[in-house]
Amino acid sequence: MYRKEIKVLDCTIRDGGLINNFQFSDEFVKAIYRATCDAGVDVMEIGKRLDVSDEYTREKYGKWNFCDEDDIKRVVDSYECENRPLLAIMFDVGRITMASMPPADQSVVDMVRTACYVADIDKGIDLAKRSKDLGYLTTINVMACSAAIKTDLIEGLQEINRTPEVDYLYLVDSYGAFYSEQVTSYLELYKEHAPDKELGFHAHNNQQLAFANTQQAIIDGVNLLDATVNGMGRGAGNCNLELLLNFLKNPKFDVRPIYKAIQENVVPLRDEMEWGFNDIYGISGHLNRHPRNAMKQRANPETKDNCYDFLMDATSEVG
Amino acid sequence: MYRKEIKVLDCTIRDGGLINNFQFSDEFVKAIYRATCDAGVDVMEIGKRLDVSDEYTREKYGKWNFCDEDDIKRVVDSYECENRPLLAIMFDVGRITMASMPPADQSVVDMVRTACYVADIDKGIDLAKRSKDLGYLTTINVMACSAAIKTDLIEGLQEINRTPEVDYLYLVDSYGAFYSEQVTSYLELYKEHAPDKELGFHAHNNQQLAFANTQQAIIDGVNLLDATVNGMGRGAGNCNLELLLNFLKNPKFDVRPIYKAIQENVVPLRDEMEWGFNDIYGISGHLNRHPRNAMKQRANPETKDNCYDFLMDATSEVG
Repeated sequence: MYRKEIKVLDCTIRDGGLINNFQFSDEFVKAIYRATCDAGVDVMEIGKRLDVSDEYTREKYGKWNFCDEDDIKRVVDSYECENRPLLAIMFDVGRITMASMPPADQSVVDMVRTACYVADIDKGIDLAKRSKDLGYLTTINVMACSAAIKTDLIEGLQEINRTPEVDYLYLVDSYGAFYSEQVTSYLELYKEHAPDKELGFHAHNNQQLAFANTQQAIIDGVNLLDATVNGMGRGAGNCNLELLLNFLKNPKFDVRPIYKAIQENVVPLRDEMEWGFNDIYGISGHLNRHPRNAMKQRANPETKDNCYDFLMDATSEVG
Repeated sequence: MYRKEIKVLDCTIRDGGLINNFQFSDEFVKAIYRATCDAGVDVMEIGKRLDVSDEYTREKYGKWNFCDEDDIKRVVDSYECENRPLLAIMFDVGRITMASMPPADQSVVDMVRTACYVADIDKGIDLAKRSKDLGYLTTINVMACSAAIKTDLIEGLQEINRTPEVDYLYLVDSYGAFYSEQVTSYLELYKEHAPDKELGFHAHNNQQLAFANTQQAIIDGVNLLDATVNGMGRGAGNCNLELLLNFLKNPKFDVRPIYKAIQENVVPLRDEMEWGFNDIYGISGHLNRHPRNAMKQRANPETKDNCYDFLMDATSEVG
């Protein structure tokens, strides 16, 4: 598959940070940055930007939950790169005040992605507008569409379509619940109700379909694709960046630096962090559930492989 | 997805046997049989039938490489089942003489699947014909199509189409090399040159696409689908039976006994056997290679995670 408009966004640090509370070493973040530079990846999302507070401290929540300009600059300055990826950060609705954001021309950040549930699309739009006012590229990442009421979703999509400050609109399979036919069906809804927007897609690998669904999104016209090195990400993880680059066959990409980073930097992390498909996440995805219960079960050494018990518990809940 | 013609074939023991030289305990084989009975799976492939010889001994190659009638009967007799799955065995071209095969009405076996490379299709057809003469259902599983010369493959497909003794014709992604677009493209070739045959599909999970490609095969009209409990199978393994049953939504299937077998019988095997996606198999699949080199690298504790080295070695080979 080759289409020149396609752009790839690496969100290893941001989605991976949801596993280890953003406690990556600087060395690891620099290695991923270097790999995305050398691989020709278009955008790298380096973390979230939350407001620091008494509750949300940098010590407890990890430096990449806050993405201070100086921290990002240290990463960028660590490696000389002719065409570095654009750098993105993520906003969570309700956890950011815009006061701390410098104008884009004084920042090393290029893109602000705002994640919000369907119910919070208006708040997301507000953050995107204010980010655009400061000069940033903007996205709205509508989470958990698979569990949203369709009329609410449609209203939100129409609202986003009326907002020129939003550059990209994302379909996010937060629960890893989609088969390819649902990817197509939701994207048709997106294209019908937000026809003016460039689309993005963010998958989760609960049913071993993150990569396949990303391919389906490409077929359906999506041009901004999220992926992570080795699929690292919360729960079952995401679309594997290296598999995606292999698929895309675009000569601007070079997959070798990604495999180098896996061998040298990611493999050692596997002993301390868990991500990727397993049975519990498969059930959770099939049932279209938030992964929190699955993650809880995986975190308990006594029950982590008890997929049958998990299925029986999940399907016997009072409706 | 629901289509009443769709049948599911469990090949856990046969494809899983390629990992451990068919050294499964009777208890394990019985557990998988019981699970397929209770889950409503249509066919269970219980192993291969090779001729015993001085080189190929039962001790060294495992009882399920030979599938003696008495061994199979003991499994079937171990569990009362109103509608048991059809039982299948696999022939390898060149490793079976038909003399040992009883007529189907004196056998507990219902289906004989003959695996062959494109170059051996004539030999495969001969075995299928002789199996049909004895009263068995027959399949021809054409291996490694992704590496076959197209004109040879077409000739083989036409030959199979002219053979009424072949009930099912399989597309087999032996190297885990296919994306969904290739599944469609090869199936179009199959339908063009063997229009009279019911089709089957057998996937491998090198690129995390076994389940997704099986879905694509369904969309393209295939009605006999191979899968294994927990994806167990050589190298990166196969399409996960439990994910497939979830997808099919056919009320004749019940996924719960499969998850029960995973929890009780498969999880304990994970310490002694390895299967499933990893980076090395991903590279091997993308490069459309036989998995033998990838399996060799995974078997070496020193190098098992060195995916970058594997990629560089594989792509620097003299062409």
